Amino acid sequence: MNKLIETILDHRSIRKFTDQKITEDQIKIIVQAAQQASTSSYVMAYSIIGVTNETIKEQLCEVSGQPYVKDNGHLFVFCADLNRIHRLASSEVKKLLEKSMETTEQFMVAIIDTALAAQNATLAAESMDLGVCYLGSLRNDIHRVNDLLKLPDFVIPLFGLAIGYPAEKPEKKPRLPIDVVYHENNYELQDVTESLKKFDEELKTYYQNRSHNQRSDTWTKQMMRKYSKVQRAEVSSFVKNKNFNKS
Amino acid sequence: MNKLIETILDHRSIRKFTDQKITEDQIKIIVQAAQQASTSSYVMAYSIIGVTNETIKEQLCEVSGQPYVKDNGHLFVFCADLNRIHRLASSEVKKLLEKSMETTEQFMVAIIDTALAAQNATLAAESMDLGVCYLGSLRNDIHRVNDLLKLPDFVIPLFGLAIGYPAEKPEKKPRLPIDVVYHENNYELQDVTESLKKFDEELKTYYQNRSHNQRSDTWTKQMMRKYSKVQRAEVSSFVKNKNFNKS
Repeated sequence: MNKLIETILDHRSIRKFTDQKITEDQIKIIVQAAQQASTSSYVMAYSIIGVTNETIKEQLCEVSGQPYVKDNGHLFVFCADLNRIHRLASSEVKKLLEKSMETTEQFMVAIIDTALAAQNATLAAESMDLGVCYLGSLRNDIHRVNDLLKLPDFVIPLFGLAIGYPAEKPEKKPRLPIDVVYHENNYELQDVTESLKKFDEELKTYYQNRSHNQRSDTWTKQMMRKYSKVQRAEVSSFVKNKNFNKS
Repeated sequence: MNKLIETILDHRSIRKFTDQKITEDQIKIIVQAAQQASTSSYVMAYSIIGVTNETIKEQLCEVSGQPYVKDNGHLFVFCADLNRIHRLASSEVKKLLEKSMETTEQFMVAIIDTALAAQNATLAAESMDLGVCYLGSLRNDIHRVNDLLKLPDFVIPLFGLAIGYPAEKPEKKPRLPIDVVYHENNYELQDVTESLKKFDEELKTYYQNRSHNQRSDTWTKQMMRKYSKVQRAEVSSFVKNKNFNKS
């Protein structure tokens, strides 16, 4: 096993950072790493917003409900972005472009491009002994994030990425058994009851023994709770108002 | 600059592979690496299908229109997957879950989760001197891919990942200037004409001088061509028929 794979397998989300700021050089390397990810048809359909302004950070922190958002070394917000390309077009071509850009296909492309870039950023950061935490919680109030970051048409905030020097080393969280996730040649609707029962047991032990926020829980229970209520219902209309995912 | 960042920055898509197969151990490491990526609320909303069956590969190759799809060492298809969680529920709870799972928010979560996992897989592979190519082209006929891989409800094929031993080392493709992609504190609707003009020049030189498929083109022209016609319009209804992105 090489060092890169060790870094990948050693990943855990960091939710507590020291006061040490990351440097301009580190920021540049992280963004460059993000940009070198594969991109669908070369569209590079993302923008990255680095937030250092304390007022904006505090408000993003409120949206996320997670205190470390304002304490971390640096906060990146990853946005799906087709605005840049849209702006390049003359006004008559713009109309044509919109027909294409508003499809679910292009919405998916922009999300995938952005996420690939973010994972490169994550690993670049982790390789420099920084810790990261993804913040899907910015979608708790996607309209407010949109206003705070002044996002134009065809730009959607997908998630934040808090990056900084770790002030904790939490236990590594287990992952689903490989046979539940990996299939050969076609999707096997196999009975995963046994595998998931074992996983639930493993997770229960993890939750009971970890150093912080000990609790009694299983993956199955968590998932049933999570999906039993609709979350962030307004994301749907927000996305459409941004001209994404309309047709 | 450390080795991991060097690997990231050295990325180029590989579209020609040797006959050497990747090993079972390598496959396992690649999938484990994928699984260790961050996941929204721990849902791990993806499945990975490893395709080795020659008949299926040939048909996926036809869909993609890219010959190396069947020549590569191993073909992975990354699918957004909420089926696993849906199946865990009792029939009355299933109804409740569907209301949540069908939202655009959960569609986004599943795509992001899958893409983060795929980029870990990519880097794990590249760190073992393997080459990769993402295949969004599997969405050229998403219905056919769906049938070939026997995907159930709440499972969508997002892209393929061809992984194998490289039989080429193409030139590295330039990326957008960092000032076009990276913003501070809010989205700057700055005039990027000059930056993009320079980038178009850089790219023109790249296309004219690369060892394969030389041509005269710029990014701006490419993007205008690409978005001037609607692509993969049927992805939208396909996704909804899979119960994703309905509300």
